[in-house]
Amino acid sequence: MALLPKVTIAIDVMGGDHGPRVTVPAALNCLADHPDICIVLVGDEALISSNLGHSPPSVLSRIKIIHSDELVTMDDKPIHALRKKHSSMYLAINLVADGLADACVSAGNTGALMVLSRSLLGMHEGIDRPPFVREIPTLTGHCHVLDLGANVGCDAAHLYQFGVMGSIVSRVVDNKPNPRVGLLNVGQEESKGIEQVKEAAQLLQQNPRINYIGFVEGDHIFADEADVIVCDGFVGNVALKTSEGLAKMVGRLLERNFQQNLYARVVGLFSKPILHKLVKQIDPKRHNGASLLGLRGTLVKSHGNADIAAYQHAIIRAMNEASSGLPQLIQKEISEISL
Amino acid sequence: MALLPKVTIAIDVMGGDHGPRVTVPAALNCLADHPDICIVLVGDEALISSNLGHSPPSVLSRIKIIHSDELVTMDDKPIHALRKKHSSMYLAINLVADGLADACVSAGNTGALMVLSRSLLGMHEGIDRPPFVREIPTLTGHCHVLDLGANVGCDAAHLYQFGVMGSIVSRVVDNKPNPRVGLLNVGQEESKGIEQVKEAAQLLQQNPRINYIGFVEGDHIFADEADVIVCDGFVGNVALKTSEGLAKMVGRLLERNFQQNLYARVVGLFSKPILHKLVKQIDPKRHNGASLLGLRGTLVKSHGNADIAAYQHAIIRAMNEASSGLPQLIQKEISEISL
Repeated sequence: MALLPKVTIAIDVMGGDHGPRVTVPAALNCLADHPDICIVLVGDEALISSNLGHSPPSVLSRIKIIHSDELVTMDDKPIHALRKKHSSMYLAINLVADGLADACVSAGNTGALMVLSRSLLGMHEGIDRPPFVREIPTLTGHCHVLDLGANVGCDAAHLYQFGVMGSIVSRVVDNKPNPRVGLLNVGQEESKGIEQVKEAAQLLQQNPRINYIGFVEGDHIFADEADVIVCDGFVGNVALKTSEGLAKMVGRLLERNFQQNLYARVVGLFSKPILHKLVKQIDPKRHNGASLLGLRGTLVKSHGNADIAAYQHAIIRAMNEASSGLPQLIQKEISEISL
Repeated sequence: MALLPKVTIAIDVMGGDHGPRVTVPAALNCLADHPDICIVLVGDEALISSNLGHSPPSVLSRIKIIHSDELVTMDDKPIHALRKKHSSMYLAINLVADGLADACVSAGNTGALMVLSRSLLGMHEGIDRPPFVREIPTLTGHCHVLDLGANVGCDAAHLYQFGVMGSIVSRVVDNKPNPRVGLLNVGQEESKGIEQVKEAAQLLQQNPRINYIGFVEGDHIFADEADVIVCDGFVGNVALKTSEGLAKMVGRLLERNFQQNLYARVVGLFSKPILHKLVKQIDPKRHNGASLLGLRGTLVKSHGNADIAAYQHAIIRAMNEASSGLPQLIQKEISEISL
């Protein structure tokens, strides 16, 4: 008996630096790997078709194409995206709003994505600020860090909501029954930090469903000490980009160091696969896909310059969140703590 | 003709994880390398003596020992350090306050150091909040990042002062005539970020002595795009510790990856010197030594677990700052912008 598709994912094919050249092959790979999903490709039909390649009917039968010739550009002000009602981004998100898709993935303009998804999907009652969450690679796995830049200047209640939502994400996406939730701070002592972080600590501590482990510092992100790390969007964005920048520097220094002389070049040749693995291990892009939480639907933002493998990771994240009913679980727990 | 000592540095020998075992040999190495400095070692005299080894008279003649058997511990509340008037930290800072030393170096309790130095040395008029500044390694050199944790919740005027002070540091310490000053933010567009950062941008822009280059993001820290990067202490602390954490993870992953099988182990043997170099290149501790700016004297804080080479770096930083008259230059420029 054929599997009935469980999850339909709408993809804004035109978003990102590479557009259909990356988004379409990534979608095809996901369809091949996951026989229980359908994908709606939203974008320029001719470009989509030219990137479909020679996919088997079992894959093609689960693709639907919706043509769009309007584009939200990276320079568009977020508010202008609301007027571009035929853009691939607008149409893809709207499919989720209309119940025709369970999740949307886009690598397009982040500000536009935030405004459009808040407007079209709406937020759950009690959510003030939807945070971006994603996985950051750690020594043995990953942790979920939120907010990564959707909100700057969060108060204690916002940080508390992030902690509750992040805990649900880790439970659902990683199957961890009791994820450790930490608050990012400048020290581990209770007296350290800013008022809103200290207040958020009290709120998290008082919620019996949260396994709150206290303050964590920047270096703990990679040390597998927490499953969920909560912070203001300004701080999270700086932490994420700092680690991206350092990971990039490691790659460049490895190249340079292994080119310095003949000995280094020869050793470099033999070390290549091992070093390549390292560069991948520490690259935050490997865990591509940031979800905007607290919306009445699943929206995953891919890095703009994601390659095919990275974009696939974002699609799989969307699939996992939608199939596990993450938005509904968040709605339920947030409504309970808002009472 | 013998060189007359130009700079006298007071060292809180007891501070840090390793105490005299690290601080004394580091002092001896600095004295050997720099015939124009004197060092006052403040701490347990017996412990200091047992770590002096077989130094030549040309080194020993420039050492003075001041005995102290009181200790500021890592658990001491900063305010309690004020009462420990015979501690090595108190006495070492007081030597600068009394004009008997030009700079003080300590690897002890950061909060205590801040309170003691503000109290004993005093701040320049017009300085509201002394920031911690230090070098972060970049692809081809380093940049100065401030504040790294002395002040959380800075307003625009504080950030502006940090920019002015950081610019002087880069001019004086790196001999850069026109250092590029960037403000750390979550995007490069003028509309991005929080109010205080946007206001600070305007203030920096209006100062003709500052080569303000605009907003920079976390990944730009390592890309040699700015010589000075300004941020709130909360954000700077998270950025620094995040990069320390990732650098540590790189070291551990390299170890692990090169142990996975016989091939990797053999290649690892030959790659060792090259990889060791990389781990050093990306380790922020290599640029050990954070100065607390805006005080009427030079104070450099070393990382608590610095090794001898790292601690030497902190002493050299103190020497360079004191010999170039950094505190006086800062006083002059801050008084000019405060008019």
